[in-house]
Amino acid sequence: MTKTKRITVADVARHVGGTLEGNGDAVVTTLAPLDEAGPDAVSWVGDAKYAAKLPASRAAAVLVTADLPTSPGKTLIRVADPDRAMISTLALLAPPVDAVPPGVNESAVVDPTAVVDGAAVGAHVVVGANTTIAPGTQLHAGVRVGSHVSIGADAILHPNVVVRERVTIGSRVIIHANSTIGSDGFSYVFRDGAHQKVPQIGTVIIEDDVEIGSNTTIDRARSGATRVGTGTKIDNQVQIGHNVQIGKHCIIISFVGIGGSAEVGNYCVLAGRSGVSDHCTVGNGVQLAAMSLISKDVPDGTVLRGNPAVDIAKSRRAEAALRRLDEALKTIRQLSRRVDELEQRGRTTE
Amino acid sequence: MTKTKRITVADVARHVGGTLEGNGDAVVTTLAPLDEAGPDAVSWVGDAKYAAKLPASRAAAVLVTADLPTSPGKTLIRVADPDRAMISTLALLAPPVDAVPPGVNESAVVDPTAVVDGAAVGAHVVVGANTTIAPGTQLHAGVRVGSHVSIGADAILHPNVVVRERVTIGSRVIIHANSTIGSDGFSYVFRDGAHQKVPQIGTVIIEDDVEIGSNTTIDRARSGATRVGTGTKIDNQVQIGHNVQIGKHCIIISFVGIGGSAEVGNYCVLAGRSGVSDHCTVGNGVQLAAMSLISKDVPDGTVLRGNPAVDIAKSRRAEAALRRLDEALKTIRQLSRRVDELEQRGRTTE
Amino acid sequence: MTKTKRITVADVARHVGGTLEGNGDAVVTTLAPLDEAGPDAVSWVGDAKYAAKLPASRAAAVLVTADLPTSPGKTLIRVADPDRAMISTLALLAPPVDAVPPGVNESAVVDPTAVVDGAAVGAHVVVGANTTIAPGTQLHAGVRVGSHVSIGADAILHPNVVVRERVTIGSRVIIHANSTIGSDGFSYVFRDGAHQKVPQIGTVIIEDDVEIGSNTTIDRARSGATRVGTGTKIDNQVQIGHNVQIGKHCIIISFVGIGGSAEVGNYCVLAGRSGVSDHCTVGNGVQLAAMSLISKDVPDGTVLRGNPAVDIAKSRRAEAALRRLDEALKTIRQLSRRVDELEQRGRTTE
Repeated sequence: MTKTKRITVADVARHVGGTLEGNGDAVVTTLAPLDEAGPDAVSWVGDAKYAAKLPASRAAAVLVTADLPTSPGKTLIRVADPDRAMISTLALLAPPVDAVPPGVNESAVVDPTAVVDGAAVGAHVVVGANTTIAPGTQLHAGVRVGSHVSIGADAILHPNVVVRERVTIGSRVIIHANSTIGSDGFSYVFRDGAHQKVPQIGTVIIEDDVEIGSNTTIDRARSGATRVGTGTKIDNQVQIGHNVQIGKHCIIISFVGIGGSAEVGNYCVLAGRSGVSDHCTVGNGVQLAAMSLISKDVPDGTVLRGNPAVDIAKSRRAEAALRRLDEALKTIRQLSRRVDELEQRGRTTE
Repeated sequence: MTKTKRITVADVARHVGGTLEGNGDAVVTTLAPLDEAGPDAVSWVGDAKYAAKLPASRAAAVLVTADLPTSPGKTLIRVADPDRAMISTLALLAPPVDAVPPGVNESAVVDPTAVVDGAAVGAHVVVGANTTIAPGTQLHAGVRVGSHVSIGADAILHPNVVVRERVTIGSRVIIHANSTIGSDGFSYVFRDGAHQKVPQIGTVIIEDDVEIGSNTTIDRARSGATRVGTGTKIDNQVQIGHNVQIGKHCIIISFVGIGGSAEVGNYCVLAGRSGVSDHCTVGNGVQLAAMSLISKDVPDGTVLRGNPAVDIAKSRRAEAALRRLDEALKTIRQLSRRVDELEQRGRTTE
Repeated sequence: MTKTKRITVADVARHVGGTLEGNGDAVVTTLAPLDEAGPDAVSWVGDAKYAAKLPASRAAAVLVTADLPTSPGKTLIRVADPDRAMISTLALLAPPVDAVPPGVNESAVVDPTAVVDGAAVGAHVVVGANTTIAPGTQLHAGVRVGSHVSIGADAILHPNVVVRERVTIGSRVIIHANSTIGSDGFSYVFRDGAHQKVPQIGTVIIEDDVEIGSNTTIDRARSGATRVGTGTKIDNQVQIGHNVQIGKHCIIISFVGIGGSAEVGNYCVLAGRSGVSDHCTVGNGVQLAAMSLISKDVPDGTVLRGNPAVDIAKSRRAEAALRRLDEALKTIRQLSRRVDELEQRGRTTE
C-alpha cells in the first residue's frame, strides 16, 4: 500500500504547536473520535461535552484545551483550538494525494490560444480557445474546459469535470469529479404545441475558495451570470439553476436544489435535499432543515423547516399538534356523545 | 473576453421583425427583465401584468405587443409575440458557442465499422462498432458512444456524455454534460440470501427534439425500450428508470425520479424533485407540484400535490386544515371543560 | 441493427432446464410480462397471483411452476423457479454487450508501476501509480483510477467512472457510467468567518459483488474507511457520505442520501429518495419508504415511513387521521355551537 511517514505523538504535538503531557513516543497513523480511536490514533475534544468520553478512550493522545482537567494515564496535547489542531493533525497524517505533474500531458488537447503556463494539465484534458488557467492550478484527467474560460491560481479540478465556455472560476476553487459548470439553464417558451428553447447567453462566476462536490451541476444564466460567492462550500449532487445568486461562506449539502433566479444570502446553511424555489430571496444567515422547501422570500437569520418551509418553532408546534391529532379525534367523538346526552337530557327535562 | 458584435436597438428591431418607436442608436449587449435591465439591455413585456414595471425600467428598448400603451421617453419595439422576440433577441446577442469542428479529432477512437460522415467528433471521443452518427451532429470531448447506437442529425452531445450500446437518439436532440443514457435498469431477484441481477436486454429510445440536462440518467429497459417522446425537455439530475414511457412535449424539472415501467402522457409538467412510482400510469397534461409523489394511476389533466399526491385543491384544503389544527386542539380542550361543567350542573340540578 | 441468434421456445426450455408442454418451434426474441408479450416473447408467472393473466396472454411460451394448472392452447415451460428461469432466459436472449478487449488500449495512460495484467483497459483510461487491477476486470473508455487503488477480478467499470486514490474495490463489482468513488467527504470547521476544510485522509472500501448505478457518489472517510458491504446493490444518483458503513445485501434506490458516519445494517431496503441522517445507526433488515428520513437510531427489522420516519403502521394511522381532519374541524364548530346553546339554555332555566 501507500508508503507512509513514521509519525509520533511528539511529532503531532510539535506540528500543532501544542504542549505535550505524557508519552510522546507512540507512533500514530490516524485520527479518530474518542470512542473509536485505537492506540495508533490521535483524538480530540473539540467541545467540552465530549470530555466525558476521554477516560475510556484508547487514543495514543488527545488534543484538548488548556483548561480541560487531566485524565489519569492519558497523554494530552494542550492547544488553543482543538478543532484547528485536529485539522492540522489530519494534514500531517495524510498520505500523499494524487497531484497532476506541472506542464501539459501529451495526451491533452490544448488550444494554441489558451494560456496554461504554470498550470498542471493532466491526461486527456481539453482546454478551449482563449482560455486562461492560472499557475498552480491542476486539471486532472478528462477535465473539459471550454473556450474563453478563466480559472484562477491553485485551483483543483478533479477528473472528468466539465466547465463550459465563458465561465469564470476563482483561485483555490476545488471542483470534485464529474461535476458540470455552465450548462444551459432550463428555460423554454411554449408556442405552437412545443417548447421553444430560450438561449442561455449568460455565464457562471465561481468566486475564490469555493469547493464544489462530485456530480454537482451549476447552470449558466440566461443573461448575466449565475454566481457562487467566496468561500461557499457545496456538497455532491447539488443543482443550482440559471441566474441564481449565492452569497459568501454558505454551506449547501447534498441534493439541494436552487431554482432559477433565486438569491441566497451570506452564511446560509441549506441542509440535505432542501430547496429554494425560483425567484425567492433568502436573507443572510438563514438555516433550512433537510427536505424543506423555501417558496417565498425569507428574512435574515430565520431558521426554517417543512414544505412550505416555516419558522422552525412553528414547524415543531405543528408537528407536536399532529402527534396529538389521533387522540384529539377520539376526544371529539366522546364530546359529541356527551353533548348528545346533554341535549337529550335537556329535551327530557323540558 | 469574447469578441462581441456591435448591435444597436435598430438592429434588434430589424432582427425580430418589429416596429421601432424611439431611439434605435443605443448599443445593446444583453437582455434582462424590466427591473434589472440597464441602458445596455433589451427587455420585454411578455405578459401585460409586467407592464406596470415599464415606466421605471432603464432598458435601452422594450419588446411589446401592438396594443400596449406608449410610455413617455421609452423606446419600444412592437412585435406580435414579445416572448418569441425575446428568444430571437437572445439568439442575436449570443456570443459564439463552442462547436466541434467537422470531421474526427485525431485523439478520438472511432470503430472502423461506425458511420460518422458529416458528423463532428471531438477530442477523446469513443464511437463503438456499427454505430451511426448522422450529419451535423456534434460529439463534444470525452463523449462515449457504444456499439449499434443510432444518433440522428444535428444533435449535440456535450462533454463526457455516455450513451451505451444499442440506444437510439433522434435528430436535434441535445444532451448536456456528464449525463448517462442506457445504463442497466435496477432490477434483481432475491434468492439464496443474495440479489441476483436481472439482465437488462432492452434499450432506450430518445425521440427528436428532446433536450436532456447535465448529470441526468436514463436507464435501458429490461426488454423492449425506455422511451422519451418528441420535444420533451428534461432538466439536470433527473432519474428515469427502466421501461419508463414518457410522452411528447413534457417538462421534467431537476431531481425528478420516475420509477420502472411508469408511463407519463403528453404535455405533462413534473416539477422539481417530484416523482412517479413504479408501474403508475400518468395521463396527458398532468401537472405535479414540487416534492410530490404520484403513487397510483392519474387521469388526464389532473393537477396534483403532496405525498401521496392528491388533487391540488384537496391538498390546499388539507393544508389549510392543518394550519387550523393547533387552534382546534385548544377549542377541544375548552369544549371538554365546558361539557364537564354542563354535566356537573346537570347532576347538581337533578 | 445487432446480429441476433435464432432462438426457439425449445431452446429456451433446454437452456432453463425446464419441461416443455406445447409447441417448441416458435422463434422468440424477447421476454415480456404476460399482458405485454407478443408472439415473439417468452413470459413467466413468478407469483401465482399473476396466473389469471395467463389465458389472455399472446406469449409464445410461459415459464411456470410444476403445480400451475394447464391453460388451453398455451405453451408452458415447467421449471422449479420461474423468476430464476426468467433471468436465465434474458441471459440467453441478450444481444452482445460492449466489452473492452483484453490488454491496454494505446490511447490509455497507465502508470508504469500499475499492475494491469489480464485486465482490459479501454480507450482514454488513466490508471495511477501503484494501482492493481485484477485479471478479467474491464475499465471502459474514460475511466480514471487514481494511485494506490486495488480493484478485484471480473469487475466492470463503465465509461467515465472516477475512482480516486487509495480506494479498494472487490471482485465482480459493477460501477455504471459517470459515478464517482472516493471524493473528499463534506466536512469543515468554521473559524474566522470562513469554513476551514477538514482533510479527508481515509478511503472507501467496496466489497465483492456490489453494483453501483450511474452518477452515484460515494465519499471517502475523514479517517478509516467508508464501506459498502458484499452484494449490496445501489441505484443511480445515490449519495453516500464520508465514514458511512453499509452492510451486506442491501437495496438502495435512486436519490437515496446517507449522511456522514451513519451505519446501515445488512439486508436493508432504502426506497427512492429516502435518507439516513448523520451518525444514525440503522439495524438489519430495516425497510424505509420512499421520501422518508431516518433521523434517529432504528432497531432491526423495522419498517418505516415519513419525515421523521416512524413505524409504518403509526405513519398510516397518522395519515388516516389527517384525512379525517377537515371533517373533524367541522364537528368541532358544530359542537361549539351546540355547547353554546346548552349553556344558554342553562342560563335561561336558572
